[in-house]
Amino acid sequence: MKKKINIHEVGLRDGLQAEGQTVPREKKLEWIEGLLFSGVDTLQIGSFVHPEKVPQMADTDALFEALRARPAGGRARFSGLVLNEKGVGRGLACGVELFCMGVSASETHSRKNTGMGTAEATRRIIAMASAVKRAGCEVQVSVQSAFGCGFEGEVPAERVLGIVRAYLDAGFFKISLADTAGHAHPVQVKELFGALLSFSPRIEAACHFHDTYGLGMANVFAALSAGVTSIESSFAGLGGCPFTKVAAGNIATEDAVHALQRMGLRPDISLACLIETARSVSSFFDRELPGRVYKTGPIAYALPLLAEAVT
Amino acid sequence: MKKKINIHEVGLRDGLQAEGQTVPREKKLEWIEGLLFSGVDTLQIGSFVHPEKVPQMADTDALFEALRARPAGGRARFSGLVLNEKGVGRGLACGVELFCMGVSASETHSRKNTGMGTAEATRRIIAMASAVKRAGCEVQVSVQSAFGCGFEGEVPAERVLGIVRAYLDAGFFKISLADTAGHAHPVQVKELFGALLSFSPRIEAACHFHDTYGLGMANVFAALSAGVTSIESSFAGLGGCPFTKVAAGNIATEDAVHALQRMGLRPDISLACLIETARSVSSFFDRELPGRVYKTGPIAYALPLLAEAVT
Repeated sequence: MKKKINIHEVGLRDGLQAEGQTVPREKKLEWIEGLLFSGVDTLQIGSFVHPEKVPQMADTDALFEALRARPAGGRARFSGLVLNEKGVGRGLACGVELFCMGVSASETHSRKNTGMGTAEATRRIIAMASAVKRAGCEVQVSVQSAFGCGFEGEVPAERVLGIVRAYLDAGFFKISLADTAGHAHPVQVKELFGALLSFSPRIEAACHFHDTYGLGMANVFAALSAGVTSIESSFAGLGGCPFTKVAAGNIATEDAVHALQRMGLRPDISLACLIETARSVSSFFDRELPGRVYKTGPIAYALPLLAEAVT
Repeated sequence: MKKKINIHEVGLRDGLQAEGQTVPREKKLEWIEGLLFSGVDTLQIGSFVHPEKVPQMADTDALFEALRARPAGGRARFSGLVLNEKGVGRGLACGVELFCMGVSASETHSRKNTGMGTAEATRRIIAMASAVKRAGCEVQVSVQSAFGCGFEGEVPAERVLGIVRAYLDAGFFKISLADTAGHAHPVQVKELFGALLSFSPRIEAACHFHDTYGLGMANVFAALSAGVTSIESSFAGLGGCPFTKVAAGNIATEDAVHALQRMGLRPDISLACLIETARSVSSFFDRELPGRVYKTGPIAYALPLLAEAVT
């Protein structure tokens, strides 16, 4: 396991996009403040989709503008998900720092999501990523449905690694594998990330797991043991992909950070800030969410240790 | 990871003892029928405690008697938890096949639970286990609070391994480590089980995890990768220890079996039977329980494969 594990909070995008209820911009900015002061590394602010298709993401540009005008304090890199060329243009205009974009390894999922098969979508994403790079911004490319698909079932590792090779050939080394439907199991995760990371020492690998069948956190640990250095997670475990048949939340950010801190990693992140945000999210949606630690609080005796590390 | 992983269903004991509502014997027998036909290896029927202390366990002897009189069909070994000499006598009288008993590695937890410190409790448990062995029955000895304690905080590995050595010296090789409070993390789990299993190739190690902080299943996989061959789990993830400060359920049996089957292991267990029982348990208590797979159902495309394996 690597010493520095990054946290990429995607709740504002992957969490909120699955909700029927739209969150007012002021509430999103309140959560962003909490997350900024927690010290997580990257915050995904939203996605650039048509506002009519996903109304919950309609204020993504406005949020980025607000963050650009925000006075200093707290720190994080701001990421945005782009799905097409128009999204890239919007993202460049409003100050996205890390552009996230991806291709589904499942032909059916890819067509349902984008209207294109995997091969065509890969060429298009690489062209978009190259445009972002030329504009001087950072890119993370991903493979969705990398561990199985609600429509197709098993997704062969060769399909996933084929897309990865295309990314590497085009010069993109920040790569995320997403378990969109939650089908991954730990042995598979360790093998697939192991194969991916064997391609080049320059790869920075990220993992993105949904907890549909209860294996989310087990898969995170399998990924970390394979050398993955970034975890994509969502406050209180909110989330799910509206385009797959069974939707379930991402692993919970505060549960992941609590686990890392139990092992002495990331004492610089304020778990208290994360828990407060997760509680606010649960309270806004007026229901219990899947995360554990926002409900139980951290292991009590660990607190003095954490307080020392933070001060 | 070993090829044969055993499932020890402890929901009828660890799950039910934490509930305020007592389950009628007929309902318990209905669940036992479902579990018997699922093909899990061992069923913990109950514990032998004073009926006034834990009324939910008052019918343990009667359940064993009913199972003794039961016609053939389905299969499993029946285990019972014993806490004292009187319990051993009751268990021997009513036909317990596997006697489970243990010591808490936390001095405070041990005293609260039994009125004795760890050293005295270890001597007593070894004497009880020896009596069971002389009577020709199987014994599994355990260390509770093996990964941390809600009262004391960290529990040094040396304390746990000291108890394990006492068990081994007395000739007991079936050993379970229980994370009573849910404090374990995967790195710790792999190390502690690794150390335990290095003592003797004759050890059959079992793991027992509570999911208080969301790491239950990750810990199971860490244990399996260290060579553990038995998982103690509870239907629908019901459970919790009433003597620790924060109670949370065991990992869910059907989630664990679903995960094993995703990896090609234990295709002989009927996941459908387990899901049906978990749904009945959730329905009896009239609330959503922590297990995932009883709510989502199994990954759909895996079904034909499982059907083939079962027929």
